[in-house]
Amino acid sequence: MASVRIREAEEGDCGHILRLIRELAEYEKLSEQVQISEEALRADGFGGNPFYHCLVAELLPAPGKPQGPRVVGYGLYYFIYSTWKGRNVYLEDIYVTPEYRGQGIGSKIIKKVAQVALDVGCSQFRLAVLDWNQRAMALYKALGAQDLTESEGWHAFRFEGEAMRKLAGK
Amino acid sequence: MASVRIREAEEGDCGHILRLIRELAEYEKLSEQVQISEEALRADGFGGNPFYHCLVAELLPAPGKPQGPRVVGYGLYYFIYSTWKGRNVYLEDIYVTPEYRGQGIGSKIIKKVAQVALDVGCSQFRLAVLDWNQRAMALYKALGAQDLTESEGWHAFRFEGEAMRKLAGK
Repeated sequence: MASVRIREAEEGDCGHILRLIRELAEYEKLSEQVQISEEALRADGFGGNPFYHCLVAELLPAPGKPQGPRVVGYGLYYFIYSTWKGRNVYLEDIYVTPEYRGQGIGSKIIKKVAQVALDVGCSQFRLAVLDWNQRAMALYKALGAQDLTESEGWHAFRFEGEAMRKLAGK
Repeated sequence: MASVRIREAEEGDCGHILRLIRELAEYEKLSEQVQISEEALRADGFGGNPFYHCLVAELLPAPGKPQGPRVVGYGLYYFIYSTWKGRNVYLEDIYVTPEYRGQGIGSKIIKKVAQVALDVGCSQFRLAVLDWNQRAMALYKALGAQDLTESEGWHAFRFEGEAMRKLAGK
């Protein structure tokens, strides 16, 4: 079996990341919402003050095989802030392409994000899960996460497009 | 009536911001969770690569009155990232001290955050609301926000403390 390496994404990975973003949105049954471009991912993640950070899972072929490494998963995260606890990390997306699931690649990505976050001084690790994705919910709970929507009643709200421009008075 | 100015927070405002953070946590019935210090707020918001941005609402006394301006509200936000839409803004906290409510100060803060976000190229404005805070939910919906927990089923999850260290294998 080929081995898997988790590493920081480079600008040249953006095409692969976009392919996986589209696969994930399809899985979440929300693919009509994807409007991001490879150019935006390049500009926003690899400039002087990046809006996000990304890890990729790369499949390394067995020695002697002609094909190069292949990106089969990613975890996109950024640093946020709690006025109660300070520095936090938020995992916006985590995805492993279906044929490579069940090998612990997702867990390795989560683990690496947690390590990076602890190194930066974060005390919390947040993410959001869709309620029909019981498999993911069960996994995160088994790993020790708390469902704050369930326990404290937090609801996610969003302004967008016209509502946001109206809010800004523009 | 004194007039109100919304401006970017400066490092010297951190003591006032902390006072208001504590008031808000009390209102949310979660004050036992506040562990942040003024020093952390200074270091994390006013260094080279800030973890957050903050607006304060400052009450300007009528001309001739002896007292100086007084911070009576704040909005703490940061930039996040959607893999579907790109740059986003997240309003972590918004608060106006009770005796100054009903004058539109909260709306002015939200409006200013939306303006800053549009200037930076954000297409979405996210925030979280507690389900018992029906007044806030009704206000955000009236302003055009969508409750994503209700409409799409998003639940907020969080790892913290021991669970986070275990996740990182530390």
